[in-house]
Amino acid sequence: MDNMEMDELFDKLNALVKEKKYRELKAELIEMNEVDIANFMEDLNSEQTVVVFRMLPKELATDVFAALPVENQQQIITSITDNELSVIVNDLYVDDAVDMLEELPANVVKRVLKNSSPDTRKLINQFLNYPDDSAGSVMTAEYIGLRKTMTVRDAFEYIRENGVDKETIYTCYVTDDTRCLEGVITVKDLLMNPYETVIGDIMDDNVIKVTTTEDQENVAMIFNDYDLLSLPVVDNEDRLVGIITVDDVMDVMEEEATEDIQKMAAIIPSEKPYLKTDVLTLARNRIPWLLVLMFSSLFTGAILLKYENAFAAVPLLVTFVPMLMDTGGNSGSQASTMIIRGMAVGDIELPDAAKVLWKEIRVGMICGFILASANFVRLMIQYPGHTMISFVVVLSVFCTVIIAKSIGSMLPMLAKAIHLDPALVASPMLTTVVDAASLMIYFTFASRILGLMNN
Amino acid sequence: MDNMEMDELFDKLNALVKEKKYRELKAELIEMNEVDIANFMEDLNSEQTVVVFRMLPKELATDVFAALPVENQQQIITSITDNELSVIVNDLYVDDAVDMLEELPANVVKRVLKNSSPDTRKLINQFLNYPDDSAGSVMTAEYIGLRKTMTVRDAFEYIRENGVDKETIYTCYVTDDTRCLEGVITVKDLLMNPYETVIGDIMDDNVIKVTTTEDQENVAMIFNDYDLLSLPVVDNEDRLVGIITVDDVMDVMEEEATEDIQKMAAIIPSEKPYLKTDVLTLARNRIPWLLVLMFSSLFTGAILLKYENAFAAVPLLVTFVPMLMDTGGNSGSQASTMIIRGMAVGDIELPDAAKVLWKEIRVGMICGFILASANFVRLMIQYPGHTMISFVVVLSVFCTVIIAKSIGSMLPMLAKAIHLDPALVASPMLTTVVDAASLMIYFTFASRILGLMNN
Repeated sequence: MDNMEMDELFDKLNALVKEKKYRELKAELIEMNEVDIANFMEDLNSEQTVVVFRMLPKELATDVFAALPVENQQQIITSITDNELSVIVNDLYVDDAVDMLEELPANVVKRVLKNSSPDTRKLINQFLNYPDDSAGSVMTAEYIGLRKTMTVRDAFEYIRENGVDKETIYTCYVTDDTRCLEGVITVKDLLMNPYETVIGDIMDDNVIKVTTTEDQENVAMIFNDYDLLSLPVVDNEDRLVGIITVDDVMDVMEEEATEDIQKMAAIIPSEKPYLKTDVLTLARNRIPWLLVLMFSSLFTGAILLKYENAFAAVPLLVTFVPMLMDTGGNSGSQASTMIIRGMAVGDIELPDAAKVLWKEIRVGMICGFILASANFVRLMIQYPGHTMISFVVVLSVFCTVIIAKSIGSMLPMLAKAIHLDPALVASPMLTTVVDAASLMIYFTFASRILGLMNN
Repeated sequence: MDNMEMDELFDKLNALVKEKKYRELKAELIEMNEVDIANFMEDLNSEQTVVVFRMLPKELATDVFAALPVENQQQIITSITDNELSVIVNDLYVDDAVDMLEELPANVVKRVLKNSSPDTRKLINQFLNYPDDSAGSVMTAEYIGLRKTMTVRDAFEYIRENGVDKETIYTCYVTDDTRCLEGVITVKDLLMNPYETVIGDIMDDNVIKVTTTEDQENVAMIFNDYDLLSLPVVDNEDRLVGIITVDDVMDVMEEEATEDIQKMAAIIPSEKPYLKTDVLTLARNRIPWLLVLMFSSLFTGAILLKYENAFAAVPLLVTFVPMLMDTGGNSGSQASTMIIRGMAVGDIELPDAAKVLWKEIRVGMICGFILASANFVRLMIQYPGHTMISFVVVLSVFCTVIIAKSIGSMLPMLAKAIHLDPALVASPMLTTVVDAASLMIYFTFASRILGLMNN
């Protein structure tokens, strides 16, 4: 179904809701994917949301509930009975429940926890304690755990009995009596071996795993490197506490990329979608860096002012200032972007610093030479008389590009070396540093070559 | 195993290679994950690569081969016999083979194709024809296809017999005689139902699918929205031609995010890792936008020059130019970044334009007010006598921020509306447009309020 067909379907469903043709509506809904139902319900008003939710069959209802945004979840929670709430909460995967609870107001959280079974409540509380962005905060508790003495037949039986509630059944984890992780076996391995085979003989005991405190960005990198469907998470004693599934990792990847992109644009990152973020929050996320950058650019202004007699003597000089600053800024941010992204995806590491700098200097020389030449041609045509000024401009462009690329590539690595976030530190600071550098280069050349000032 | 342990292991393996202790080396290697072996082999020289590759057991060898970078693949191809090559090529998943062939020089490609079985060759040729970045270019041909008349028992038997070579067995596709896609069933469904159940009764016939020409960015969005492990790809006649698996989609997501980030930084995107890209290519990817932006910033320079008598009359004015331009640029790029990323992940669509503009105007008013106030306080302290100039600066900051946010949010949407890439068009162009706008605002206020010029 493409977007247009989906829009048509939604229009039809909306009409059914308005006309209160609930039987027809229900018939349509139960044929649909839970994600599509959730998308449809998002735009309903609070009352309609609850009506539609109540007409869903029980299992579908929980799946739809998990896929809804937290606003709609809250509407539903506040209008169903404790009993109904209890069923939903105990049916939710722990990671979905935790994601929801982190967003809900305290009184609603209290009611949800009151209506969970003691086991679920304990798990939820444990999960709520894992630091944000850690492996523990992304994992779920519902995995298939096997013993190595089981046969393939036992394993299948166990999966048939217990698999319905597990987030993934395709990778099973083999643990000992103390819940220590001993090995991993996929359903594919199980299917490819005779029923009598003992799990211990065919499991892979070289398990790729992480601890609960591992950064979620590294988790995403591990999934990507090893093409995993799920990854076991252990505590400090190597006991299996949960698994991370690939669908949650895709969310992490998108989130981390968005975060890096926002940081590079001098925005305090936020996970909420743009259209659902209120104006005040948007402003609050943008003002701090704007203020910092505004005041640091006063420094550039001070440099300009210092050379005001140069402007007075040769007014033409001022016309090249934006070009130089922009070219420096763009050259620098090209370099810093390559390095920040390269480090984020694991292509570039700190020991590569010298290699990177040497590379950027050469790239800078090539880019600088071409930009300077282009400028030279233009200046010769536009200001044929001003050979010396042209010379100053061309030389400044060349040097600015090289310096900008060097600073742009080294700032992120420096940030990383002192354990700061490269994206956060490097990009927003870069403009100011490079602006100042390019102006100083320009006026140094101008004063030396044109002999404008007394030095 | 963490990074440090891995480094130690690699050191040990390298020592074994150097001392030619091949038996011990082999014993270590066969215990390792194919991805780790590939990572280890990457840094070997050409001769060592081939020696190590030859000592791997056959099945492991193909997996390692698939995980190697194309340079090492080429080294191996050129030093093994036609027979060995034939085994490897026929064992590779079609998508991995195609990825490799797209990078290899023509004579090597010819040799590879000569040594593939006719079926493989036909598939490879077909896959090579799908446009870059399309669903067809990411998919693979190795899927489990079932018939709806089969029982669960039949299905398991079929999977046991044919599953080894399939890229994923966990989602099976049900087709009719003409290979038309009729439904989908997961191994979980199969496991949860009695052996006698007929596939047609339990399969899901509401299949989420894409056509071969679908953009890979949309494919990634569909995976993310519906939490899929694989997605069927059909041709125009709705015949199943292949599947896309989640591991390849993670690569697509990373690639698309990198591409967007590079475009926003005015770089022509490239898929190759930074350290493996030569200096000339890096320079070539950066020069075009630098040139375009350099020449367009001359426009800003021209505006500055036009107001040179204002500078001559009030030299202090020049000191605020970088601050205004930077603040405008930063405000604008914050807005454009939010919108470009929001459109990339599907949160914002074209019909939201009015909502977005109104939001950005309000965010701009808040940010502008705070930045203007901060400036006002500073100006009162630093230049107590220059009330009117301060007034000009403060007013300019306020208006520039609002204009910059409006332009910054609308440029990407405009680009999308005329079917251009928002990241490519909006970000690099933004600086120039906003620079010009902020200068014009500044000098308009300056000339009106300070009465500097004759208008």
